[in-house]
Amino acid sequence: MSQLLDHGRAVLQSQPFSRHLGAELTVFEPGRAELALTVADHHRQQHGFVHGGVLAYLADNSLTYAGGSVLGDCLTAEFKINYTRPARGERLVARARVASAGKRLAVCTCEIVALADGEETVVAIAQGSIARIEAGKD
Amino acid sequence: MSQLLDHGRAVLQSQPFSRHLGAELTVFEPGRAELALTVADHHRQQHGFVHGGVLAYLADNSLTYAGGSVLGDCLTAEFKINYTRPARGERLVARARVASAGKRLAVCTCEIVALADGEETVVAIAQGSIARIEAGKD
Amino acid sequence: MSQLLDHGRAVLQSQPFSRHLGAELTVFEPGRAELALTVADHHRQQHGFVHGGVLAYLADNSLTYAGGSVLGDCLTAEFKINYTRPARGERLVARARVASAGKRLAVCTCEIVALADGEETVVAIAQGSIARIEAGKD
Amino acid sequence: MSQLLDHGRAVLQSQPFSRHLGAELTVFEPGRAELALTVADHHRQQHGFVHGGVLAYLADNSLTYAGGSVLGDCLTAEFKINYTRPARGERLVARARVASAGKRLAVCTCEIVALADGEETVVAIAQGSIARIEAGKD
Repeated sequence: MSQLLDHGRAVLQSQPFSRHLGAELTVFEPGRAELALTVADHHRQQHGFVHGGVLAYLADNSLTYAGGSVLGDCLTAEFKINYTRPARGERLVARARVASAGKRLAVCTCEIVALADGEETVVAIAQGSIARIEAGKD
Repeated sequence: MSQLLDHGRAVLQSQPFSRHLGAELTVFEPGRAELALTVADHHRQQHGFVHGGVLAYLADNSLTYAGGSVLGDCLTAEFKINYTRPARGERLVARARVASAGKRLAVCTCEIVALADGEETVVAIAQGSIARIEAGKD
Repeated sequence: MSQLLDHGRAVLQSQPFSRHLGAELTVFEPGRAELALTVADHHRQQHGFVHGGVLAYLADNSLTYAGGSVLGDCLTAEFKINYTRPARGERLVARARVASAGKRLAVCTCEIVALADGEETVVAIAQGSIARIEAGKD
Repeated sequence: MSQLLDHGRAVLQSQPFSRHLGAELTVFEPGRAELALTVADHHRQQHGFVHGGVLAYLADNSLTYAGGSVLGDCLTAEFKINYTRPARGERLVARARVASAGKRLAVCTCEIVALADGEETVVAIAQGSIARIEAGKD
């Protein structure tokens, strides 16, 4: 396992909310990050699909990781998500990548797929900006 | 308590993810909805602030409720969130309202505030579109 | 006329694209800006409504002005726009305000209305982040 | 030239605003559309770069075309744009594609590049939803 992935997993474990949801960091390399989640009952909404809030969490956090892979310690300044299909299946994977990066800001995109019976369906796509955390930042 | 609020709370209780996070529906009336959350340790990220994913959940779900207050059974098609301040404090409140509504689609906005020691701070604002669920919809 | 409005109008006149479209700055004060446009044939799309690109320009530029009213020289880093109604009428007005501001970044929102026969219709709403231009910024 | 591209160009010519800006449709095939623009002085802002409103127009319209390539007559319901670099150069190209499509709605993404001295720079990326125009739509 790479040192970067090792470090990323340690950060994820230090996020109580990510542990509460059961997120796993499966890829973390310069320009790219992947978060996965094994779907459990407590991730669902009233119709049995995965709640949009779970997808929004995966978008937010995978975008932050993608940005962080090139910027270091950072946070998501903003993002936008389009839900494309109801999310069902056993597992969700959020694949984020850096579309453009400067010294302090990276614009990243993310695709979230649901895996059901070995088939992948795109359930959401997202786009956002990730800002490096700076000493003295307002 | 109004019948609409009563109904909205029953729907929220039927969302396992909302129960998992501890969300409460505090306002639900035509054109307006408010979700609240008492902050617990499992809502946090590694720096002790509330995780952006929790705010994204509150945005997503309060926008859906605002849209649902005029459209009936519906879902969030997409939304965008800007994080404005680190979220700390005891409680979060997401206030959503309908900005414009047709028969099948409502555009809604939301402001999320954190309450700490009796002071309110805006920690995120969001905007999105909510679509009515229709029989036979693709 | 205030000095700030005076200055803002001089900047607008120095934007060839804003002159090309015929935009006017009608309000510019701390935390708030308003751009207006008298609709002409060259602003339309194929169905006779104002083209979404004109509304997107008004959103982009009014958000920049709102942010600039508190940050000084700045640019729009990103924004999101929802079109709410077809835009018809004689005049468009984009009203933008600062929702939250730090030293380097402001999050702003905007509502665009169309005026037809003395009636106002909200035709789009937008939300975005405005960044201060800094020497040496990447 | 394909019939679809032929049709798309006729639609573009019937948009007075697109003619006013000088946009050209260079690709239009199922799932994909490309708009281009030769940069002129009237496209600029006060620092000499292409105005963000021009990029927002290109995003809006190329997303609509991408969606229209699979949905037929349609309009952009909403979109989000991140500006990644100042836009300079002789020509802009907006490349849009369908990320996911149903019968009535398509989610599309777009990348806008500026060409200067034979080099391409990504100056903006966008994401939005395109809705089919229906008889009786509210």
